Amino acid sequence: MSGFDTVAAFERALGELREIDETARAAAAARQEVLTKPRGSLGRLEEIALFMAGWQGRAQPRLERGRAVVFAGNHGVAARGVSAFPPEVTVQMVANFEAGGAAINALAGAAGLELRVVAIDLDRPTADFVEAPAMSAEECLDAINRGAAVVEPGIDLLVLGEMGIANSTSAAALSAASFGGTAADWVGPGTGVHGTAFRAKLDAVDAALARHSIDATSAFEILRRLGGREIAAMAGAVLAARQARVPVLLDGFICCSAVAPLARFSPEIARHCLAGHCSAEPGHARMLGRLELTPILSLDMRLGEGSGAAVAAGIVRAALAAHNQMASFTEAGVAAA
Amino acid sequence: MSGFDTVAAFERALGELREIDETARAAAAARQEVLTKPRGSLGRLEEIALFMAGWQGRAQPRLERGRAVVFAGNHGVAARGVSAFPPEVTVQMVANFEAGGAAINALAGAAGLELRVVAIDLDRPTADFVEAPAMSAEECLDAINRGAAVVEPGIDLLVLGEMGIANSTSAAALSAASFGGTAADWVGPGTGVHGTAFRAKLDAVDAALARHSIDATSAFEILRRLGGREIAAMAGAVLAARQARVPVLLDGFICCSAVAPLARFSPEIARHCLAGHCSAEPGHARMLGRLELTPILSLDMRLGEGSGAAVAAGIVRAALAAHNQMASFTEAGVAAA
Repeated sequence: MSGFDTVAAFERALGELREIDETARAAAAARQEVLTKPRGSLGRLEEIALFMAGWQGRAQPRLERGRAVVFAGNHGVAARGVSAFPPEVTVQMVANFEAGGAAINALAGAAGLELRVVAIDLDRPTADFVEAPAMSAEECLDAINRGAAVVEPGIDLLVLGEMGIANSTSAAALSAASFGGTAADWVGPGTGVHGTAFRAKLDAVDAALARHSIDATSAFEILRRLGGREIAAMAGAVLAARQARVPVLLDGFICCSAVAPLARFSPEIARHCLAGHCSAEPGHARMLGRLELTPILSLDMRLGEGSGAAVAAGIVRAALAAHNQMASFTEAGVAAA
Repeated sequence: MSGFDTVAAFERALGELREIDETARAAAAARQEVLTKPRGSLGRLEEIALFMAGWQGRAQPRLERGRAVVFAGNHGVAARGVSAFPPEVTVQMVANFEAGGAAINALAGAAGLELRVVAIDLDRPTADFVEAPAMSAEECLDAINRGAAVVEPGIDLLVLGEMGIANSTSAAALSAASFGGTAADWVGPGTGVHGTAFRAKLDAVDAALARHSIDATSAFEILRRLGGREIAAMAGAVLAARQARVPVLLDGFICCSAVAPLARFSPEIARHCLAGHCSAEPGHARMLGRLELTPILSLDMRLGEGSGAAVAAGIVRAALAAHNQMASFTEAGVAAA
C-alpha cells in the first residue's frame, strides 16, 4: 500500500510529483465538443469531467467508488481555551461518526460515498505547540502514513475531512508558516469563538510562529511543529493520492491547511485536487487563492468533517453523469451550431 | 388539478399568494438547533432545509418525489437570426430529451428527479413579437395551463427548465418590460451569438419594447406579448405551485424571465422558489437581484433545459439528508458548546 518509510522518502515524493494524463484529458475534451449542447455551456461541470478524466487516466471517468475519510486528532493547544467546545468532543464526535449520526454520515450517504473514520491516538493529544513541537518526527511520520494508507487502488475519488477540537488554531499557524502573515491574517472564529477565546487563539498562533519559524524549513517540519495528527494524515493522503493519480476533493480551511506546507515547497501539489467549497472561515478564501484552487461551492458552510467536500462530490457525480451519458449531435440527429 | 379558467382567474391568483407555513418552518429551525454541529455551521444547507419545511408544511421535509419539467416552444422571432442554432433544433432536442440523450436526462437522473417533457405546439411558433403580440390571449392562457398542470399533489419539489431556439431574446424582452431598462441591459450571448446575430437580438428586443410597452399593463399581457409558450407555461407552473405550496427550483435566465412579469405586479411571487444557480448569461445575476433570490450554485453553466436547477436539486437533497438524519447532542452524547 501507499506510504513513506522515512521523512526523506516523504520529502522526496513531494519533489517528484506525477503529472496529469494529458491524453485522457484531451480525449475527454474531444468528447465534450460533440455532446448535444452549445459548446462550453455546462461550464464548470465540463472542467470537472476533464479533471477527473486526466487524473483517472480515462476518457470517461467514473465515480463508482468515492471514499470519504474523516481523520480525527486531539490538540494540546486546546488547553489554552481556543475553542467553543471542550476537547472531549473529539472522541464524542468520533463515536457519533461511527454510529452514523453526524453531518458527514448524512452527506456522504447523499453523495454515494463510502465513509471511513480514522481516529489517531485521541488519548494522546499533540504537545501544545506554543511550548514545543506538536509532534516528534516519529509521531508525525506515523500520522502521515495513517493518511497515505487510505489511498487504495480502485478509489475513484478521495474526499478528505477532519475533526479535532482546536484544530483551526493549528490550521491558522500552518497557514502563516506556509504562506506568510501573522495570526491576524489567518485566525477566524472556527466553531464560533469570540472575545477571550478568540484573543487566546490569536496569541497562541503568534507565539507558536515566533517559537518555530526559524526551524520550519521543510514541509515535514512545518507539519510536525504546528500541525496535528489528523492534519498530518490529510497531508499524507494528498501526497499518496498524487503518487497514485487518485483525484482528491478538499474540504475547508483546516483540510486545506494540511496542503499549505506541501504547497510552500512544491507549488503544484494541489493540481490533482478540487476545492469542494469556500468555507465561511475567513482565512479559507485566501488559502484557496494561494493554492490556486477555485471552490466548487460557496454555501457558507463551516463545519469540517469533510461536509463541504461531500456535498461537492454530488457536483462531481453530476458532471460525470452528463459527460458519460449524453448523446452526441450525430447520435441524436441534432443540428450543431 | 391546478389551472386557471380565465385570464382574470390567473391575475386574481397572483394577487392572493399563499404564505409559508411558519409553524413547520419554526419546528425545523428548532430541530437544527440541537443537531450535532456548531450552530449555523451548515450555512445555506440549513436555510434550504427550513425553506423546504415551511413550504411543504413538514418539520422534516422530504424529497422523495422531485419532478423536473422541460417545457419547449418555438419562437417567431427566431426568423430574425437571433440564435446560433436553427429553429429545427427545438424539435430535435425534444426528441433527444425523450430518447434520454440530453444533459437534463443525465442531470435529473443524477439528482434522483423524475423528468417530464412538455412540448407545446412546436409546429406553431409564436408570432414575431417585433411585429405583433407573440400569442393570442387564448394561446397564452393555454400555455399557462400546460404549466399549471404539472403541479400535482405529492410533488415534493418542482424543478423548471426550458428549451426553445431564440427564447433568450424573448427572455430579455420580458426582463426589460418587467424591470425596466433596454435591450443593452438584458441581452446576452444566449447559446453563443456574437456579431450580426447579437446585433439582431438587440434590435429585436428594442423594437419589441417600443411596440408593446404601452399595452404591457399586466403580468398576463407582458407574457402574451413578449413571451413564448414554454415561458408562459413556466409562469403558470410557478403560480400553481404557489397555490399548492409546492417549492420550486428555478433554472437560469430564461426560466427566471417567466417569473419577472409576475414579480413586477406581485413582488413576493418568488418566495416559494429557490434559484438553482447563477448562469453565465450576463442578465441573470441582475434578474436574481430583482427577484431577491440568492443562487445556490455558480458554476458558469448556460445550457438551460433545467440543467442548473437539476444540479442544485442535489444540494437540496444533501440539505434534507443532514436535517433529517443527523443525531441531536443528547442522542449522540456529545457536549454542546
